[in-house]
Amino acid sequence: MSATDKAEAKPPMRDALVAAAFRLFTERGYEQTTVDDIVTLAGVGRRSFFRYFPSKDDVVFPDHERCLADMTAFLGASGPEHEPVRRVCDAARLVLLMYAENPSFSVQRYRLTKQVPGLRAYELSVVWRYERALAEYLRGRFAGGRDGNLRADVIAAAVVAAHNNALRSWLRSDGQGEATATVDHALGYVQAAFGSPPAPSADERRVEPGNPPRGAAERPEDVVVIVSRRGAPLWRVVQEIETTLGRD
Amino acid sequence: MSATDKAEAKPPMRDALVAAAFRLFTERGYEQTTVDDIVTLAGVGRRSFFRYFPSKDDVVFPDHERCLADMTAFLGASGPEHEPVRRVCDAARLVLLMYAENPSFSVQRYRLTKQVPGLRAYELSVVWRYERALAEYLRGRFAGGRDGNLRADVIAAAVVAAHNNALRSWLRSDGQGEATATVDHALGYVQAAFGSPPAPSADERRVEPGNPPRGAAERPEDVVVIVSRRGAPLWRVVQEIETTLGRD
Repeated sequence: MSATDKAEAKPPMRDALVAAAFRLFTERGYEQTTVDDIVTLAGVGRRSFFRYFPSKDDVVFPDHERCLADMTAFLGASGPEHEPVRRVCDAARLVLLMYAENPSFSVQRYRLTKQVPGLRAYELSVVWRYERALAEYLRGRFAGGRDGNLRADVIAAAVVAAHNNALRSWLRSDGQGEATATVDHALGYVQAAFGSPPAPSADERRVEPGNPPRGAAERPEDVVVIVSRRGAPLWRVVQEIETTLGRD
Repeated sequence: MSATDKAEAKPPMRDALVAAAFRLFTERGYEQTTVDDIVTLAGVGRRSFFRYFPSKDDVVFPDHERCLADMTAFLGASGPEHEPVRRVCDAARLVLLMYAENPSFSVQRYRLTKQVPGLRAYELSVVWRYERALAEYLRGRFAGGRDGNLRADVIAAAVVAAHNNALRSWLRSDGQGEATATVDHALGYVQAAFGSPPAPSADERRVEPGNPPRGAAERPEDVVVIVSRRGAPLWRVVQEIETTLGRD
């Protein structure tokens, strides 16, 4: 499903309401704008507004419900062949796609949300729902493994934090920067910490002699993590590995 | 500062208001209880209520402001000798301490919060403030380093998620389990992923030939992380390390 398909699927009246609302929020302020003001400017009745949006808050975030549904469907369509950490990173990219579909609207909303505490609270609850969707998927994939729920919750939170760090820095640049590259970099950091590492680059080289990624299928006790400084003498590294692997 | 010192520092009228509120919330339900009902049962005036609590929501979480202030002070008193990831884990333990001071009250509140959507939103905003406090400290410690803000945000989110996973499982056990041990285990997982690993145990052995922990002072490019399966042939591990360390 491309961004264009989705934009075309939106009903024009809904778009007109969002446009009218944001024009008024910008001109008069959020608190000073009523639903009546919005429907008058859009030239529709109150009933039409509430057909699309349960409240004034919801018109500020018109696409999150659709995006949450997309994310749930995407995760639901996952198979055992998907490395779970990579999969939740890909799911998080759906949120970025929604913001990147309409940069100027996203930047406008970002500024508005920073000013209105009620919208900030609304946004926190939306972010929480995304995080739970990712965590539920991971809990299923890690089920039966050691610390499955703990790992699921921590990784979901890390993915959301990385995504939002990148998204905010893109929004602060007024949507001028390369959103995708920024988010990819941020999610790569989480994948390196928890999932199968990304393709190695010049200064982020990692060794995986055992080949399969450190994913859900593997029990943690089968994996040895060795943290070494680049300058450590090789004989010492080898000695420590031997001890750890129980081959001394 | 011990839990006892803190309990003694609380004014009795404030405690009486909290006790009255929770008795009514449990008997009648949260929505059906007014501030007037609470002050009548506590035998004080409305002004006294609002002296301690800005709103009815705040009486449900009477100690978060104090705990946030403690956390900020604790992080503010940090020095360069504190490994930053360990330090934010210790800061998170202050929240646990607050819950563990009064298990039956914490369990009651947990059940209430699950039932009342408005309280859930309030709790999300409190959790967000803890997370920001941890992230701000880490941003300071990682300042100037590569991806400093990204790492700070991700680690703060991971610490909060681990803490809350453990806290919720303790609350679900009706405060019967070992809260401290559960939280220590959860935070240990985050430290292993991002900070200096905890002291090795029988099934979580790690090798650190380079001695200093992988902390803020160290640039990521100085550290090599090697993920190996326990069954990998040793010669292959060594070969891969040699390649990675650039000694081939």
